[in-house]
Amino acid sequence: MNDQLVRVNRDRLWDTLMRLAQIGSCHDAATGLPGVRRLALTDEDAQARRQVIAWMREAGLVVRIDRIGNVYGRRAGTGEDLPCVLMGSHIDSVATGGAFDGTLGVLGAIEVVRTLNDYGAATLKPIEVGFFTEEEGVRFGTDMLGSAVTAGRLTLDYAHKLTDDTGASVADELVRTGFDGPEHERRPIPFAYIECHIEQGPILAAAGVDVGIVIGVQSISWQRLELRGAAGHAGTTPIEHRQDAGLAAAAVIVEIRRMCESGQFGELRGTVGRLAFEPAQTNVIPAGATMTVDMRVPDDDAMTAAEAHLAEFVAGLARGYGVTGSLERMAKTRVVRFSRDVQALLAATADDLGLPYVKAMSGAGHDAQEIAAICPTAMVFVAGEHGGVSHTPREYSNPTACGNGVDLLANAILRLANQPEGSFLGGS
Amino acid sequence: MNDQLVRVNRDRLWDTLMRLAQIGSCHDAATGLPGVRRLALTDEDAQARRQVIAWMREAGLVVRIDRIGNVYGRRAGTGEDLPCVLMGSHIDSVATGGAFDGTLGVLGAIEVVRTLNDYGAATLKPIEVGFFTEEEGVRFGTDMLGSAVTAGRLTLDYAHKLTDDTGASVADELVRTGFDGPEHERRPIPFAYIECHIEQGPILAAAGVDVGIVIGVQSISWQRLELRGAAGHAGTTPIEHRQDAGLAAAAVIVEIRRMCESGQFGELRGTVGRLAFEPAQTNVIPAGATMTVDMRVPDDDAMTAAEAHLAEFVAGLARGYGVTGSLERMAKTRVVRFSRDVQALLAATADDLGLPYVKAMSGAGHDAQEIAAICPTAMVFVAGEHGGVSHTPREYSNPTACGNGVDLLANAILRLANQPEGSFLGGS
Repeated sequence: MNDQLVRVNRDRLWDTLMRLAQIGSCHDAATGLPGVRRLALTDEDAQARRQVIAWMREAGLVVRIDRIGNVYGRRAGTGEDLPCVLMGSHIDSVATGGAFDGTLGVLGAIEVVRTLNDYGAATLKPIEVGFFTEEEGVRFGTDMLGSAVTAGRLTLDYAHKLTDDTGASVADELVRTGFDGPEHERRPIPFAYIECHIEQGPILAAAGVDVGIVIGVQSISWQRLELRGAAGHAGTTPIEHRQDAGLAAAAVIVEIRRMCESGQFGELRGTVGRLAFEPAQTNVIPAGATMTVDMRVPDDDAMTAAEAHLAEFVAGLARGYGVTGSLERMAKTRVVRFSRDVQALLAATADDLGLPYVKAMSGAGHDAQEIAAICPTAMVFVAGEHGGVSHTPREYSNPTACGNGVDLLANAILRLANQPEGSFLGGS
Repeated sequence: MNDQLVRVNRDRLWDTLMRLAQIGSCHDAATGLPGVRRLALTDEDAQARRQVIAWMREAGLVVRIDRIGNVYGRRAGTGEDLPCVLMGSHIDSVATGGAFDGTLGVLGAIEVVRTLNDYGAATLKPIEVGFFTEEEGVRFGTDMLGSAVTAGRLTLDYAHKLTDDTGASVADELVRTGFDGPEHERRPIPFAYIECHIEQGPILAAAGVDVGIVIGVQSISWQRLELRGAAGHAGTTPIEHRQDAGLAAAAVIVEIRRMCESGQFGELRGTVGRLAFEPAQTNVIPAGATMTVDMRVPDDDAMTAAEAHLAEFVAGLARGYGVTGSLERMAKTRVVRFSRDVQALLAATADDLGLPYVKAMSGAGHDAQEIAAICPTAMVFVAGEHGGVSHTPREYSNPTACGNGVDLLANAILRLANQPEGSFLGGS
């Protein structure tokens, strides 16, 4: 390719990342580190949204908000009727998260716009920066919520009615925070979408590269499991008479790990992140246990087999433990494969920038897997330290890796924005 | 023996039991049954205390309250300087308990006094009815609290400073409920103590008898186990890199059950009644897990071995799971063996009443194990239905079994109260 390469301002990018991390900053007792707590549509999230919108406007973007609270900032193109090139991610966090998850894609996109402004670079197509509501799903129970509504997988009505642990609904919280925007949630179809995101895994670091090109997202299944046994006195109830729902829950957790290690379900990853006993007393055998089961695997058939095996195991608890179980689906997404054309353009751009990269499947879910349903989509991964840990304050990607990832985003977006309409997306 | 046998008023006993169960009555979602929720020194417990004191006074007892909130009602003897014969138990409950645990011993004791009044029976020694504070230990974390302070195993200061989950202390709650009495907590030494209590187990029913004579209480160990791993993203953290504190907790629960079934630790019973994950999110690997471990076995050496094995297993979690654990003692009691003299008197009295009985070790902890440290002590067990389940609204002992148990209590107390000072306690 012969077009000009741009370079983003790394200090400005880093400064913006660090400033946003101050909003919802919290002390994490487990690690002793300052973490980020910015659950979707809380006061902290709203404050962060207002800050990001202010930065969008400072970069000259025209901001609009849709009915599920997704926010878009638009930079005009010379061909204003052409579909836009979209980049973005999310700014909500888990309960004790880090400074990079989601924010790199949003603040990186703003840095791309600032850089294009610095270069005085006009583009044929408009460019938009977006961030989507409740990507994490930890407050209202459904992840990728805003992007799934935009892409049409979930209805606005379904999303509005979701409630958090206190009973507050998405609709009410949108109104309360002032993010119940007027725009239709089914946004105009973009020409393409690129999301820059931290890897949240160890593959890039192990390969010694700062950036990755994401080929797709593995299948994700979230289920809620309720186990029902019988309470009894801890001291007097003979072992053989017990119907211990807590023991059954433990057996499920151990079995899920065994499934992951068996190789029988491909590269299955299973996690029980939440578990509550009832009545939860030292000297009472648990009558009930409620848990979540998060399973991920980059193969739809393996997911089908894993879910079937788990259901069978739960059914068998009645025989082995006198405990009945019921599984309820919270969320499920099939394997998503990203656009080969956008991947090829990213690869050619990385080569031109002299950035070594690897191609990798994403272990985490991302807004990109939803937007992929409506336009050609791919993702840029940025390496993380400490084995790529994420969803903890230990999450850290250094300024060089972040800068390289956003350089790749900037140049790929610039090329997409200047491609003549109808032309082939891929690299030269 | 030639002395007169008395019979209690079974309808009056039953009516009193059912009336007290109305205080703190709650609906139990797990069983659909009405349960009893009367945690120590809550408003419900205070209301129940006032009701029981009213019944004591109606029966002519002179009531006094000590500095840990234990309540005693006294019936004078002809030899008023002689040590009293004491009976009693507790009226606090677990979070969702039944109508009989503890209350049978207290209301049964009041029924004994009413019966002696009906018979116009004067006794040589004074007779006292007592109930002890926080027997269950579910609110402030230490069971047999009031009786342990009375018997001198725990200090008043230690007990006063214990706090519940909200930070409220025993001392504050005694003042708030009006049960910070003026009497010294180290009460005058009784001549003997008998506690009538539901069995909370299946042995009596299996033997086809309504009553049991308790030979002692098994060793009880309560420990708190804190597990510390590392948080991580559920989708991206490879299985082999995980330090999943929730999985380690599950492994501990499964191991405790294996220990119980192994026969290696005698008749060990182990229960994990409480378990909490942190941060407790669907898509975050648990960084921490906190649990309680309740172990009971009728042999001190077996308990020593079981505790040592558990500690070793916890230490091994670092190797197997990358999770560190620390065990903290909440409570521990050695095996208690009750007075052979009092047991012999109970056996002779049961024979005279024509009541078949079995002798049994207690699986549960009781105030009697504390009072046994200061005077000759034994217990009468009453059979329960549904396999003797307890600590659940399904707990049920029928009126005949309750009446037979309290008949045995009444006649044994009457004999003890009339024995000449210095005479042999046992049967004829």
